[in-house]
This record gives sequence, C-alpha cells and structure tokens, in this order.
Amino acid sequence: MKTSGDTIIMTNTVGVLSYAAVGGKKEAEGPLAKNFDVLITDSRYDEKTWERAESSFSKQCLHTALHKAHIGADKLNAVVGGDLQNQCTATSYTMCDFSVPLLGVYSACATMTQALALCACMVDGGAWQCAAAVASSHFCTAERQFRTPLVYGGKRTPTAQWTVTGAGAVILTDRQSAPYVRSVTFGKVCNFNISDINNMGAAMAPAAASTIMQHFKDTGTSADDFDAIYTGDLGHLGSDLLLKLLLKEGVVVNNHRDCGLIIYDRDYQKVHCGASGAACSATVLCCDVLPKLASGQLKRVLFLSTGALMSQTTFLQGQNIPAIAHLAELCAHDAF
Amino acid sequence: MKTSGDTIIMTNTVGVLSYAAVGGKKEAEGPLAKNFDVLITDSRYDEKTWERAESSFSKQCLHTALHKAHIGADKLNAVVGGDLQNQCTATSYTMCDFSVPLLGVYSACATMTQALALCACMVDGGAWQCAAAVASSHFCTAERQFRTPLVYGGKRTPTAQWTVTGAGAVILTDRQSAPYVRSVTFGKVCNFNISDINNMGAAMAPAAASTIMQHFKDTGTSADDFDAIYTGDLGHLGSDLLLKLLLKEGVVVNNHRDCGLIIYDRDYQKVHCGASGAACSATVLCCDVLPKLASGQLKRVLFLSTGALMSQTTFLQGQNIPAIAHLAELCAHDAF
Repeated sequence: MKTSGDTIIMTNTVGVLSYAAVGGKKEAEGPLAKNFDVLITDSRYDEKTWERAESSFSKQCLHTALHKAHIGADKLNAVVGGDLQNQCTATSYTMCDFSVPLLGVYSACATMTQALALCACMVDGGAWQCAAAVASSHFCTAERQFRTPLVYGGKRTPTAQWTVTGAGAVILTDRQSAPYVRSVTFGKVCNFNISDINNMGAAMAPAAASTIMQHFKDTGTSADDFDAIYTGDLGHLGSDLLLKLLLKEGVVVNNHRDCGLIIYDRDYQKVHCGASGAACSATVLCCDVLPKLASGQLKRVLFLSTGALMSQTTFLQGQNIPAIAHLAELCAHDAF
Repeated sequence: MKTSGDTIIMTNTVGVLSYAAVGGKKEAEGPLAKNFDVLITDSRYDEKTWERAESSFSKQCLHTALHKAHIGADKLNAVVGGDLQNQCTATSYTMCDFSVPLLGVYSACATMTQALALCACMVDGGAWQCAAAVASSHFCTAERQFRTPLVYGGKRTPTAQWTVTGAGAVILTDRQSAPYVRSVTFGKVCNFNISDINNMGAAMAPAAASTIMQHFKDTGTSADDFDAIYTGDLGHLGSDLLLKLLLKEGVVVNNHRDCGLIIYDRDYQKVHCGASGAACSATVLCCDVLPKLASGQLKRVLFLSTGALMSQTTFLQGQNIPAIAHLAELCAHDAF
C-alpha cells in the first residue's frame, strides 16, 4: 500500500471473489428484488426475536457468499463486520456459527464500507489471503432501539428514512479477480450541529462531502474520472444537500447515486426520504454495484457509506449528531 | 506481514511511540495510582452527563499520548478506537475534536487489543506511518446501560466485577521504537453457554484459552517463552478457570497475570472478583505493561483483552454470552 493524504492506494491485488445480498419483505417488493441472492419475507425468519432474526439474515448472507465463491469458511482468514444493534450483537451471534476470527467494527450505516476498506488493506498488506466484510440491519430492531417501539405506532416524519432489513457480504482475495478494490479513504468525524434524529440525511451529507473532496484532493481525480459516485443512505434530502455542499466548494458532480434512493420505490413503498441502515449500502453494493462492475456496465466507481454516530442515549441527552463517511474505489477488470 | 494460522507476524517495524493512561476516582485509590498519567477524581469531569465525561476522559488520554510523543494530531494517519457505550458514542464524540480519520471498532472489553493489533497490521503493511489505538469505559455509563440504574442501589453479586473508569491510548509508528509489536492473533467468537451477566469471567475464560492456544500452535511457542501472559479482565474466577482450561489441554502457564486483578486492591476496594471494562486492559497496558517493557523489567509478553459480546437486549431475551479474546505480542528492544 501507499498513502496519499487520507487515501490508501493498493499496490498488490485485492480482488472481489464473491458477494451476496439477503433482503426481507420490503426489499422483496422493491425495484432491486430480482437482484437479491436470497429474499426472506418473514421478518422473524422463524426466530423468537427480531434481534435473532437479524443474525440469521447475516448468517444466510455469509453462507451464500461462501457458496458462490465455492469455498468453505475455513478458507477465510477473518471476518470484519458490524451492525446497528447495541454492542453489535447481530454480528457477534452470527459469528458463533463460524470458526473464523472476527474483527468487530462500528461506524453506524458506514459499517459496510469501513469493513470492506479494512479488509482490502489487510489483504493488500499480506496479513490475509482471503477475508469477508459483512454488515446487517433490521427495520424492527432499529426502530425500537433508536426511535419508538413498533407497537406504539408512531407517525413517521416526512424526513424519515426506512431501515433496510437484510445483510450484505463481500469476500476479498489476494488473487487476481474482478471487480477489484483500487483505493480506500477512511473518513473523519464531522459534526455540523444537526440534532433531528429523523433527518439523518442532513447530518450525514457533510461527512460524505468531506470524504469525497478528500479523495479527489489525495488522488488528483474529479467526478468525471468515475462512472458513478455512490453514497450509502443520504436519502432524498441528504443527496440534495450533498450536491449543494460540493457545489459550494466548486465541485460539480453529475453522476451521484444514493443507495437509499435505489433499493425502494419511494412513492409506491411509502418510505418518505428513502432507505437507510447498515444493510442499505451493503445490499445495494452486493446486488447492484458489484454485479454492474462484474458485467462491465460500470468501469470505475467511488462507493461511500455514511454513518450517523449518535445513540438513543446521546439523543435524549440533547447531543448533536456527528457523522462519518468511508470510501472505497471499485473497478472493473478493464477499467484502465 | 506473514501469516501463520490465525497469527499475523510483523515483517517491518511497528514501534510504540508513546502511550497514556487516564483514570478516575477508584483508579486513583488503587495500587497503580502513581503510574497513571492523569487522574480525574470527578467522575463527571465537569460535564452534564457521565456519557460526555467518558468522552472527556478519552480526549484527555489521546491528547496526553500525543503530548508525550511530542507530535500534533496532524501526524496521525488514523485513530482506531471504541468503547462500551451503545453505538460506541464515547469514541465518536471524542473524535469530533480531532481532524483525523476514525475506524470505529467494537469487541467489548477486548476493544483495546483489537484496536492495537489492527493499527499494528496497518502500520506494518504501509497503510499508515503513525496511528493511535484508543479505548475507554466508565463505571457509571456501563452500570446503568448493562445492569441497573445506579440510583437503584442494586446489591452486587460476589462474582461481579467493577468497570474501570478511564481510557488508554497507544501511538504506533513505522519508525524504530521500543517497545514494539511483534505479532498479533485475532480471536474467534466462543460460546460456552454461560448466561450469568454477573459472571463475565466465566464467559470470557474459554475465549482467552482458545486464543492463547491458537497463538502457541501458530508460532511454535509455549508459556515459557514469555515473561508474562496478561489477560484483560477475567477477574478472580475467570483467571482460575482459564488456568484450569489450559491445564485440561496440557498447557501449563505459571506466568499469567490479569489486568482485572492488578488495577484495584480487591479486598480493600471491595470490587469483588476484580476489575473489568474496555479501559481495564487499556489502562493497565499503558500504565503498567508498556512502562515495564520500556524499562526492560519485562522483555517479551503476550497481551490479551477479553470481551463478552452480549447486550442488555440479548441478555433479557435469554441469550447466552459469547466471548472473544484478541492478542498482541509485545517486546522490549532487547527481547531477542
């Protein structure tokens, strides 16, 4: 690896060996439904609790990615993963079923890209030959943990986003494989004094702008060098804000796409500002972005996930919502 | 780096540039008091909430480590850190004050060693020239989050451990510096069907045994090759259990020390089975183990932190407590 500013450029091979996306009921009704590897329309997945169900989604996802790669879990040097549940329990209970070292990570809805970027660095540096990045979320576990119990039936504000129920997993390898990871940029914590827990897009947009500009500066690139710049779950308002923030800095981006606006049909599925959750960027990465890079439909993209770093406790204590965005540059085999 | 089993052996230089430990009131009354860099006997640290106070402990710790290294935060490529608060907010709010990329990690009380081991791999691989590992915990934030509100005045069971209030930070560098990190072993999630939330030592001991045996197997070493084998916070019962588990596998360890039994005077300070918390191994590492390696009093140690991976939600839902242990091999400049 070599470093330029906050950006780490791979100097060896970091290939994507396989990937899988698992979705729930709402995801099965959305425009990406046919792209998911597995759809489970029972939100409880035969479990007693939603929390256990989220682990089952995540397990199913990792098993599917391993199956698609034609390898057993014993070939993985490690799993880097996380989720939104308090103490990241969805991922920890998932890993009870795999005899593979776990590195637990947390950066809210930016978890997938942080995990992927970290895996890429560890593979490029020679620490691992093969490793998986995994992230999950569940509408029911997230709603009652961060907002109100579902049975309370609280009315959703127009700025609200819908937490994706599902999981995404990417297996990276040090062997030649396409798509591949070319560079990564880990983000800084940004705090723009947003305190509305129902308007996450606004809290996260400045973090996305900051990481995108940092990457451009570090690598001497601009938006035109990429087929698309994906963000994880800014939603409708956050996406607008991102483009305005970038424009204010003189950065024109005409190829922005937000995973939170891709996975659901906003009007038909009544998800207000779009989708969110750690599984939002994780599933769209695995059932839309990586397949398009594999087929050559996309050649070179910047993929970001954004995370709002508050908790229910800090929210009730009147704290602002800091945010972070991590980035991975992903390329098709013939990108250059 | 080169890999042997689950162990990653550094092939370049990963030196410890500096380290700092910050403690609270109970730590100031314990046997390690004089070794702490900063002691803050006001548990609220002039803040309105304990949660904010924990961030202040963590900020103070990172500032102190930077000061001791005679560098500014701009010299850090990244901070890898975490804590026990829901959504790791202590660390996220800490990082609002530093313009440095953050990689949030979570493995409960094993967070410090996971962060340190990850930093070591990133420095060895060339991704970073200089980076910090940070972990914190706070008795008051942990008690009300994991057990009962403090004002409830619940009676502590004989197996209970006392969460350390404080933070530890280690700055690693790619330049020659001592002590240094020689190898790391990331642990697997172990679930031995322990469900008593007041007996964490028993839940975590099997994870420690598993990681120690894995490291011995991967490197062809035995306990006799090290001056000491530290664990993070097994406490009195957990430490006993660890030695029994190892003996059952034919592994004799006569040089085991547990950070949870070092930081407090168990009888005088009434902490029952000992100390715990992410700051337990983090502070003892920074105010006892690393200073002894720097002075040559210790030459070569295995340092483990152990984490119990449940949440209050999974506990109330009747789930068992999975656990994990991560390991770093730390050496004095003349260890070999």
